[in-house]
Amino acid sequence: MPRNFKITLAYDGHEFHGWQIQPGKPTIQGTLAETIERITGEQTLPQGSGRTDAGVHALGQVASVALQTPIPADGLHIALNDKLPPSIRALTVGEAAPDFHARHSAKGKTYRYRIYRAAICSPFLAHYVWHYPWRLDESVMQSATAFIQGEHDFTSFAASDPDRAQRIRDAEDEDGPSNVRTIYDAVWRTEGHELIFEVRGNGFLHHMVRNLVGTFVDFGKWQHPAESMAKILREKSRSAAGPAAPASGLYLVNVEY
Amino acid sequence: MPRNFKITLAYDGHEFHGWQIQPGKPTIQGTLAETIERITGEQTLPQGSGRTDAGVHALGQVASVALQTPIPADGLHIALNDKLPPSIRALTVGEAAPDFHARHSAKGKTYRYRIYRAAICSPFLAHYVWHYPWRLDESVMQSATAFIQGEHDFTSFAASDPDRAQRIRDAEDEDGPSNVRTIYDAVWRTEGHELIFEVRGNGFLHHMVRNLVGTFVDFGKWQHPAESMAKILREKSRSAAGPAAPASGLYLVNVEY
Repeated sequence: MPRNFKITLAYDGHEFHGWQIQPGKPTIQGTLAETIERITGEQTLPQGSGRTDAGVHALGQVASVALQTPIPADGLHIALNDKLPPSIRALTVGEAAPDFHARHSAKGKTYRYRIYRAAICSPFLAHYVWHYPWRLDESVMQSATAFIQGEHDFTSFAASDPDRAQRIRDAEDEDGPSNVRTIYDAVWRTEGHELIFEVRGNGFLHHMVRNLVGTFVDFGKWQHPAESMAKILREKSRSAAGPAAPASGLYLVNVEY
Repeated sequence: MPRNFKITLAYDGHEFHGWQIQPGKPTIQGTLAETIERITGEQTLPQGSGRTDAGVHALGQVASVALQTPIPADGLHIALNDKLPPSIRALTVGEAAPDFHARHSAKGKTYRYRIYRAAICSPFLAHYVWHYPWRLDESVMQSATAFIQGEHDFTSFAASDPDRAQRIRDAEDEDGPSNVRTIYDAVWRTEGHELIFEVRGNGFLHHMVRNLVGTFVDFGKWQHPAESMAKILREKSRSAAGPAAPASGLYLVNVEY
């Protein structure tokens, strides 16, 4: 009987074409699958808690994978960090219950988005923040953020993705057919030159955090009064909300089970 | 009459083959020269305070360049940051006295070296530190460091560079023919998971900081008692000292004039 492993990963998304395996392109899922095959000889497709887009980072992505290998979890952990590129690190490796699945078992997730506000962006942060040095009214952003707390239909913030209809019919679709999600906490804070958004919820639609952040920045530019956030949600239309914020500032912080 | 400019630069050395211009390879000096030409139409070779090697970073490198352009310094500053890649930033641009030269006028420099001590290196630091998770006796490293304070012949820590004899005969050689340098301050400190070396002196030989750090790490492994640092300096031989530490952990912090 195979053993089921839970692997917590951090990665620098700048060096990859996203989580999902793609022929001929470096991806996190593809690199992890190849590395596991080099260590165990087993061909597998590790499942992530969700797909991160190209350029999106992870501080605590979770993957699950069933393996026949007799290697203990600690040995697999050491071997993974030995063979993976330095831009992906296995933070923890442990055995999980046979029915544990990184995506289906997830109960909640936290994302962070970093906006860098100084006039000149440090060259060491270019791929790790959204450099936005222009004026923003943070109090309007804070007020608009209050409207997303709780259970809502987030269709206005879902990727306007041409194959989405197809993906909804696909049993493997990570989001499921409903666009209703519950946001437990959503806050903005300032740290040095950075304005940081942190959001925790029971799940997120494709592009949802980047679409929320791009919309909150529109609020910060006084394009709408904070109350119109309720209307944007009610419209259930991608065109009601603002543009997506760049991938470079987004981090999957952790996944709860 | 040309105007003389002083440009302070920060750069992510991971994305370049060092400071010095090389045909067909991305270098800081080459990228800066091309960018100045795109802005002003003038072909120049900006002079740096010293050459940083491939992979070495700068928080405050200084370059000087003579230009005929009528563009004010502030306008040149904005244009540089608009046209340079995000991995190089002009922190300040100002007019300097006609005889100012980034290398010849330099009176002192500060370098920093970052060693990352945690068992697993963050994927976001892989190119920005030396990951050294093994045991080190920091007190021996501190004691050995005291021996480099003041004026010494640092031949034991100079690059064992086959074209060095040639370069010494070359009037453009940045180091000059003597290997005597004065170290004003050299300290190790701990910050979170990092062990950080900071050294300020009137000048540094090629590879000197990396060779010093590699040697201090040998001391930290109890390969020598701290007092043998005096003997290593006296021997004036590269083979007396330890190996070079990797480029990834080294930062040129600032240059004094």
